[in-house]
Amino acid sequence: MSEKQSSKDGCGVCCGKVASVVPLFNPKSVAVVGATEKPNSVGRTVLWNLISSPFGGTVYPINPKRPSVLGIKAYPSLAACPGEVDLIVVCTPAKTVQGIIAEAAQKGVKGAVVISAGFKEIGPKGAELERQLAEEAGKTGMRIIGPNCLGIMNPITGLNASFAPAVAAAGSIGFISQSGALGCAVLDWCAHNGVGLSNFSSIGSMMDVNWGDLIRYLGDDENTHSIVIYMESIGDAPSFLEAASKVTPKKPIFVIKPGRTEGAAKAAASHTGSMTGSDDVLDAAFKRVGVVRLTEISEVFHMFNALSRQPLPQGNRLTVITNAGGPGVLCTDALLLSGGVLAEVAPKTIEELNTFLPAAWSRSNPVDILGDASPEAYAHTLEVVGQDAGGDGYLVILTPQAMSRPTETAEKVKAFGKIKGKPVYASWLGGGLVAAGQKALMEAGIPVFPEPDAAAETFTTLYKYKKNLEAISAPAAPLAKNEDRQKVRAKALALIDEVRASGRTILTEYESKKLLAIYGVNTVQTEIAKTEEDAVKLAEGMKFPVVAKLLSETITHKTDVGGVKLNLQCPEDVRKAFVEIKTSVSNNPKWGAEHFQGVTIQQMIKQDGYEIILGSSLDGQFGPVLLFGMGGQLVEVFKDKALGLPPLNSVHARMMLEETKIFTALKGVRGRKSVDIKELENLMVQFSLIVADQPWIKEVDINPLLASEEQIIALDARVILHDLNTPAEKLSKPAIQF
Amino acid sequence: MSEKQSSKDGCGVCCGKVASVVPLFNPKSVAVVGATEKPNSVGRTVLWNLISSPFGGTVYPINPKRPSVLGIKAYPSLAACPGEVDLIVVCTPAKTVQGIIAEAAQKGVKGAVVISAGFKEIGPKGAELERQLAEEAGKTGMRIIGPNCLGIMNPITGLNASFAPAVAAAGSIGFISQSGALGCAVLDWCAHNGVGLSNFSSIGSMMDVNWGDLIRYLGDDENTHSIVIYMESIGDAPSFLEAASKVTPKKPIFVIKPGRTEGAAKAAASHTGSMTGSDDVLDAAFKRVGVVRLTEISEVFHMFNALSRQPLPQGNRLTVITNAGGPGVLCTDALLLSGGVLAEVAPKTIEELNTFLPAAWSRSNPVDILGDASPEAYAHTLEVVGQDAGGDGYLVILTPQAMSRPTETAEKVKAFGKIKGKPVYASWLGGGLVAAGQKALMEAGIPVFPEPDAAAETFTTLYKYKKNLEAISAPAAPLAKNEDRQKVRAKALALIDEVRASGRTILTEYESKKLLAIYGVNTVQTEIAKTEEDAVKLAEGMKFPVVAKLLSETITHKTDVGGVKLNLQCPEDVRKAFVEIKTSVSNNPKWGAEHFQGVTIQQMIKQDGYEIILGSSLDGQFGPVLLFGMGGQLVEVFKDKALGLPPLNSVHARMMLEETKIFTALKGVRGRKSVDIKELENLMVQFSLIVADQPWIKEVDINPLLASEEQIIALDARVILHDLNTPAEKLSKPAIQF
Repeated sequence: MSEKQSSKDGCGVCCGKVASVVPLFNPKSVAVVGATEKPNSVGRTVLWNLISSPFGGTVYPINPKRPSVLGIKAYPSLAACPGEVDLIVVCTPAKTVQGIIAEAAQKGVKGAVVISAGFKEIGPKGAELERQLAEEAGKTGMRIIGPNCLGIMNPITGLNASFAPAVAAAGSIGFISQSGALGCAVLDWCAHNGVGLSNFSSIGSMMDVNWGDLIRYLGDDENTHSIVIYMESIGDAPSFLEAASKVTPKKPIFVIKPGRTEGAAKAAASHTGSMTGSDDVLDAAFKRVGVVRLTEISEVFHMFNALSRQPLPQGNRLTVITNAGGPGVLCTDALLLSGGVLAEVAPKTIEELNTFLPAAWSRSNPVDILGDASPEAYAHTLEVVGQDAGGDGYLVILTPQAMSRPTETAEKVKAFGKIKGKPVYASWLGGGLVAAGQKALMEAGIPVFPEPDAAAETFTTLYKYKKNLEAISAPAAPLAKNEDRQKVRAKALALIDEVRASGRTILTEYESKKLLAIYGVNTVQTEIAKTEEDAVKLAEGMKFPVVAKLLSETITHKTDVGGVKLNLQCPEDVRKAFVEIKTSVSNNPKWGAEHFQGVTIQQMIKQDGYEIILGSSLDGQFGPVLLFGMGGQLVEVFKDKALGLPPLNSVHARMMLEETKIFTALKGVRGRKSVDIKELENLMVQFSLIVADQPWIKEVDINPLLASEEQIIALDARVILHDLNTPAEKLSKPAIQF
Repeated sequence: MSEKQSSKDGCGVCCGKVASVVPLFNPKSVAVVGATEKPNSVGRTVLWNLISSPFGGTVYPINPKRPSVLGIKAYPSLAACPGEVDLIVVCTPAKTVQGIIAEAAQKGVKGAVVISAGFKEIGPKGAELERQLAEEAGKTGMRIIGPNCLGIMNPITGLNASFAPAVAAAGSIGFISQSGALGCAVLDWCAHNGVGLSNFSSIGSMMDVNWGDLIRYLGDDENTHSIVIYMESIGDAPSFLEAASKVTPKKPIFVIKPGRTEGAAKAAASHTGSMTGSDDVLDAAFKRVGVVRLTEISEVFHMFNALSRQPLPQGNRLTVITNAGGPGVLCTDALLLSGGVLAEVAPKTIEELNTFLPAAWSRSNPVDILGDASPEAYAHTLEVVGQDAGGDGYLVILTPQAMSRPTETAEKVKAFGKIKGKPVYASWLGGGLVAAGQKALMEAGIPVFPEPDAAAETFTTLYKYKKNLEAISAPAAPLAKNEDRQKVRAKALALIDEVRASGRTILTEYESKKLLAIYGVNTVQTEIAKTEEDAVKLAEGMKFPVVAKLLSETITHKTDVGGVKLNLQCPEDVRKAFVEIKTSVSNNPKWGAEHFQGVTIQQMIKQDGYEIILGSSLDGQFGPVLLFGMGGQLVEVFKDKALGLPPLNSVHARMMLEETKIFTALKGVRGRKSVDIKELENLMVQFSLIVADQPWIKEVDINPLLASEEQIIALDARVILHDLNTPAEKLSKPAIQF
């Protein structure tokens, strides 16, 4: 995994490289290093692809052994090329690539596509070659795609710098694939289904050019209206997140990434040689920046079909027109289960439909126009419901019944297939009888889906992008801009430094709660008693009953050593509890008297609320990750939780809440009143700032956080710091810093 | 909804009809009533279908106005037909059908397909026509399919008694559709994809012939190896369940039924005029009889593809062969998430593959044979892994890369596509480059799926059938055969009769627990105290602390009237509780002293186990339905429950347990020991027998059932009976009685 910083800060390893990847996709001249005539070779295919799909520039074959390749004058080296070379495509063995890059730099080449394999994907030997190559590249400032990739295409200019079988048609979708093979399959599918692309990039090992670079490029590219990605590893997570968050407000990004199961993650690791992080964290990160995740390959095809032909839906209300009840109902199930709704049909629309539809039509959505519906009835119905403001999109279903005329119907319907700002989809369900109609619709810009339920799910998937946008456009959480926050941060840091100065990495419960309190988190009043007398005095200052807990700088699992005494009703109970805890720790063979630093006394809170966990832990790729979820004894059984990346604003906090089932309970069930959700959101935001502010914190948990009608209060807390000698670059750092 | 009994008992309304539907599908002569030459008419299409696809018998057009139809001699009436008529197909208006059935009965016709619409689906007027038709039919003993259907086909003989556009090819799948339109679409798809059927039946309104009849018929039909059903309403549930349970041990049944959402259920209701029951109950019923439910239309197509070409998998271990990592990994996700596993590849197999695959092949499953895999490498790999006993099925994936030869590969691979008892699937992923290969594979009997993940999911869906079989082959629960069970049943009935005799339909908690105890359910010791003195005496006979609860023959929500006093530590507490409960009820303006019949005293059980609910309530279609699930305050938030149909055996009980998350907790988590699962299963079986045995019980709940390491015990219970004057046929009756 690349250890580079987000590229906005420049390359953290070697240089200040921030050069754009624009020249890679818009070269005036391209050299193919390793061009050859050997049948089926990569070098021959790449050269042929560049020549056979003219991009308006010059192609130079580089081959030290031949005067020409495929009839085109060849040059023995880059240096020998007569003019400037903007882009090189490298097809030579892995061990030669470093030298070629050095030579290219000399020549002033701006970018390279390294198709050659044999780097980190083959093991330690290849990884060392790749390290050397990266070092060389770092000296040059040249942007490099690959190694181990299929190449790139700019179908708008015609550039095909790849060894894919054919160049894509020009279109408006940018497609980045980390699998060359899957890229080939999708390109073939697109060609077969009339889908054009604005860009195709096989990203390979991401030694240099990564997700962030390509997403930023496609975000600025006016020919690209949407982005589809096949991802195997995220690589430089902050770079991806920053770029995606900049682009999703303008155009949608869809990502399919395997590894939802451990088995698949393992298979992926053996396949690309890249580590994969926790899939749940990835999901949370995608959501945070407005990226929509796809899970099935068919969904990718459906996206290409819909995005290339119709506008994005602005809402989730679908109107279904059908000549058959069954498919309409199956489609309704899929629509509702995926987050859509059936559009209401306005009375006025119904009235108008009544004027020409047979009496038995459904008079509601799905608009069932019956088995003998004529092509004219279909077309007129779409025309009429297309003007009803209640719908955000339309799906026309046809099943080939005895009276049906599938092809004629397609021909009539297609005239009404462009509705401003609302997508029109079709599903001509069947085989041979509907094939010609399907073709006519597709050619007219109405995407045909193999099944109507798949069409409905495509509609709601696209709507998810729109819905996410609302969330991501909310203002970011207040970072440490104002004076108060600076003070809070400093005060908390002082507490942490004090603990570190004492040689510890674990805060006591008392210290942990103090840290939370500095950030405004409501914690139960907790006082330290070093003696029996202190304990009693403190308890008397509170309202009985109280709780006594072990105070130890070393023991974190207090219950295991008899260190928690609940429900103490009177001073005598407190005195007894103090002695028992002290004795229990002192006599414990694993511990001893030196692990007893006293007890804390805190008020006993009546537990008639819900037990919640709020925590943060470190992910290898994404840094600190927040967890909110149901606590209590069934926590591991129900796994009712949501993850998020700090810092949160209240919209992010609310999104996390809404992902959990316990949220239903918190809002009030069975006659119980709601807890103060606003307060809970604020608490989550404050908690997220602790994590975002304090790099020394490795883990922090509030468990339980008790939420009831009356209050939301942290009953116990635990903070763990990084090892004392951890270097600055290894401390916690949020993946999201914008 | 038909009110008929399960047909094994004969028609409960009118006759002893048990006639088979065999003659419907194997007629020697067919009359088309309403045959005409009017273009596009049903009468013309049906006649033409019968003539153009010869079935080896005679066709008689019936038309009073013409001497011939489509050149075939016509007869003015059925009576005028020269020979015997086995089957009539009725295409005339609804109001004429009753007379035609009467005439057909006179003629000795054995079966009728009523295509005519205009019955219950159009509202009350049509429903009345249908009632009259059913009455007429009941007199005759004739079996009738429809009304409002597309007709039937027997592709083995060639019979096409439908108005579908074309007859299906002969094959081994029986397909029953309750939507004629969807039926048409599937028939067209099958024709286009080379899938043959053994039977096609458009079942229509199910006035007479229902699911049970057709499933039994297809179960006995040797040409039918599997059954696929599109269902809109289950109709006579016991008949369906009985037939399905007889057939699934021999051949798989797959059902797609919409109505998973309320919105779709509503749309279905407006479309077919039929009530739809609770979808969760339906799911439970399907599982119980081994029926596998499909949810997406694409799955139906995938089933047809797989069932028509390859054997069923006997296990869930899939081996994936691929020339691309990405699709292999996506496929692994889908496989694992749907319940399959990647087969282990034996060391011997790896060794053999090493002899001819390039060094960099994956050496594990997915078997990645790399991007330049030759047709020979593909074929040889399938040959070798096909002999590895560790796999239960095979999926070959190809993506069209630069070196790929998709068509040649298909040609080579197809020779190894028949492995005894193990399915071989393929996914040639792409568009035009792979089309010829796809065709070659399909023609050679290897089903090609549009995406590899869809292929993996098809594999696991088919495996689910196999897995269900293990459960349904377990012995049924002991019904009242042995003497003890008869005694238990009689004893419980006596208790119920006593309550009914006192004019009540609600059992007190005391009586409810007594009933449970009769069936061997462990309940907390509970005694009745009519006076303070009694209460104290009873409490002293138990171990303190105890609980006092209101005893009332009328008040069921004891807590609401201050009728529950927990944690009574001493005799004085008990005395005080008695007085408080009595006073509280007596002074309650809604109730009064007459609603106080004393208190019950029971031991206070330490609640350190899990709170469970075990109950039964009545479903309109399926009768009593059992519910097992997590109890406690979050019951409505987590909805962690499983449904089942009584009576259960221990395997059914275990299946219900395994559907819930709380089962994970019951088996022991976080250092807690498991509860006695065997005992819990037994308790569920006994509980199910109460429901199966006692028709007067309308609802029964144990809430909570406390399950801990030490014991499983009913802490509270509630039984509600049917109204006292409920007629016998309206009492509770399990849908499953075999």
